[in-house]
Amino acid sequence: MIQNFDYHTPTRVIFGKGVVDQLPTVLRPLGKRVLLTYGGGSIKRTGLYQKVIELTKEFEIVELSGIEPNPKYNPSVLDGVKLCKEHNIDMILSVGGGSVLDCSKAIAAGAKYDGDPWDLIIYKVKTNDALPIVDIMTLAATGSEYDAGGVISRTETNDKVAYIDPHLYPVCSFLDPTYTFTVNAKHTAAGVADAFNHVLEQYFCAHHNMVADGFCETLLRTLIHYAPTAIAHPDDYQARAEIMYTCMYGCNGILELGNSPSGWPMHSIEHALSAYYDITHGEGLAIITPRWMRHILSDRTLERFVSLGTNLYGIDRNLPPMEIAEQTIERTYKFFESIGLPMHLRQVGIDESRINEMAHHIAAEGLDNPDNRYVALSEAEIAQILTNSL
Amino acid sequence: MIQNFDYHTPTRVIFGKGVVDQLPTVLRPLGKRVLLTYGGGSIKRTGLYQKVIELTKEFEIVELSGIEPNPKYNPSVLDGVKLCKEHNIDMILSVGGGSVLDCSKAIAAGAKYDGDPWDLIIYKVKTNDALPIVDIMTLAATGSEYDAGGVISRTETNDKVAYIDPHLYPVCSFLDPTYTFTVNAKHTAAGVADAFNHVLEQYFCAHHNMVADGFCETLLRTLIHYAPTAIAHPDDYQARAEIMYTCMYGCNGILELGNSPSGWPMHSIEHALSAYYDITHGEGLAIITPRWMRHILSDRTLERFVSLGTNLYGIDRNLPPMEIAEQTIERTYKFFESIGLPMHLRQVGIDESRINEMAHHIAAEGLDNPDNRYVALSEAEIAQILTNSL
Repeated sequence: MIQNFDYHTPTRVIFGKGVVDQLPTVLRPLGKRVLLTYGGGSIKRTGLYQKVIELTKEFEIVELSGIEPNPKYNPSVLDGVKLCKEHNIDMILSVGGGSVLDCSKAIAAGAKYDGDPWDLIIYKVKTNDALPIVDIMTLAATGSEYDAGGVISRTETNDKVAYIDPHLYPVCSFLDPTYTFTVNAKHTAAGVADAFNHVLEQYFCAHHNMVADGFCETLLRTLIHYAPTAIAHPDDYQARAEIMYTCMYGCNGILELGNSPSGWPMHSIEHALSAYYDITHGEGLAIITPRWMRHILSDRTLERFVSLGTNLYGIDRNLPPMEIAEQTIERTYKFFESIGLPMHLRQVGIDESRINEMAHHIAAEGLDNPDNRYVALSEAEIAQILTNSL
Repeated sequence: MIQNFDYHTPTRVIFGKGVVDQLPTVLRPLGKRVLLTYGGGSIKRTGLYQKVIELTKEFEIVELSGIEPNPKYNPSVLDGVKLCKEHNIDMILSVGGGSVLDCSKAIAAGAKYDGDPWDLIIYKVKTNDALPIVDIMTLAATGSEYDAGGVISRTETNDKVAYIDPHLYPVCSFLDPTYTFTVNAKHTAAGVADAFNHVLEQYFCAHHNMVADGFCETLLRTLIHYAPTAIAHPDDYQARAEIMYTCMYGCNGILELGNSPSGWPMHSIEHALSAYYDITHGEGLAIITPRWMRHILSDRTLERFVSLGTNLYGIDRNLPPMEIAEQTIERTYKFFESIGLPMHLRQVGIDESRINEMAHHIAAEGLDNPDNRYVALSEAEIAQILTNSL
């Protein structure tokens, strides 16, 4: 049965080669003082930084650089909030990948709050306002450019928290696929795995519908089709463009309209891996995904595997359903492997030593609650999935 | 090659059984004085009118009823604008199908303009503002609930004009599928044909992409799957809900992101039929569609037919492409016919007498311009398509 939904994605997306030239027109109505956020300096090597500075000559620019992958509450969010308050910033311009944008979202909310921004991130205090955010994406992966969420890590407590609030939708996202030409094979594949997983998280739910299923299968098919080209030919515009376009739908809810909650269990598990070991999110997801799929396969979930296997991978519908399901998991594993992703935790420096600790941390997020998780997972089951991923 | 795009759909959609109870919360921030617009009174027979009045007790309500199918500039738009100005209206609440909502959009813009609202509709004057619009849909068809357009007819000149402007996005659309239970078989089928055609209009273009294609095929598949159920069992919630959900994506551009312009030629042709003969829009589209498809079939367009035929109808990929294309047209015709739609102009009271006049009128819209039409059509070709539809 199709479920009720309430959907609203007010972000404007300007997509294509050269669109960043429209930046001044988009920023102008938002004010004068801009916090420019970016990461480790790759935008200086590619020339995008210089282009942005050129395009924003009429604005007052304050910079926050060095935002980390798996962006950190301390120092990045705290530093950004301080800068916004000191300089009476009107808007944030995020230039980079999902990490820079996620961090910028937390800064945008923190800048409009008098207390400790962590209160907002963990929903101790309701977010009532945020600075407007405009972004220029340089990586296709997280979907942060078209959603209202961000993921923030707090090193001292090994927390990696998803922070979602309607005030965090970017006002406008510029998606120019040519800015992803310089993304290396490792991060291209990790971005594809991230997007692939976003879709799967939403596909696996108890109540689904034809529209949502078809949209999900379309995006997965597109990623499978274009990922090898984007990796082999990094400057293939069509491949980069279709991947960037696919990624933008990952997390804004459009893929699960009318569905019952899936609970995003693989993300809950992966966030602990990234929090404890600071690994690349998409790589962690690629490793977890097939093991989670195998773990939840049962008579109750079988239909989802058969639907995915026959519609996405073209597996013969006449095979026994359990055989289709097994092939579906295998095909998913092989796809990730084929684009060069590590498929074992040991390959990314994770051994068994902290599995129980991580499982305990993950379980605290309520993965055992069948009301909001497609398949409830106990702490022991989470540990088993992690062990199977070694 | 994927084309650049600029996408923004700020409308909030609240979907599902019982969601209209949230109406006061949605209206409250918009003001106090409401123009309530509706059609011929069916909402009084179903009880929805009484429910809306009950829910809006705290507001000042001014009513405009009697809005026509193929809504008329005179009297409906003009009367509505007059009421808005006289009563200093803050917002419009549209309760009905796409016609009521389209009319309400033109009123919303006209209310904020000092001159003749027709200036706005024909883009003689730029639309700079409009009253906020909230709608409750009672028919699944036009997609007006999630787009920035409306179609307005002017009887004295036989004009039926599509008026599109970003100010016309509804603030919020309430889509409760149970309100479509009372829609009869004729109008259910016509609504399905309208939505089906919206998708096809966008599918047929020179430059397309995997995501757009997959989204389009998904929606067509959903309509084909659920239309017979909705007609045979008008109170089947799942069928009504999937159709309503599909229709909402018809016209807001999401189906053609990255595509080159299609030009919506079938709509241009149908609008003349409705303008001259006031027929039901979806019926006109069902009649025109297979004839237009057959007319444009050529080596250049063949790929689109093959893609549609194999992906949507499951036609054997190993057949000769022209054979697949012929079957695709045939299957489309048979689908419309199977849900009870008239498939000849004579069945809806149109004969050959005014074909040349209509073709001349349609040609004036520039259907012969290859820059913005997938297949350019001369006046003689338009007349031929109409003749083939008799």
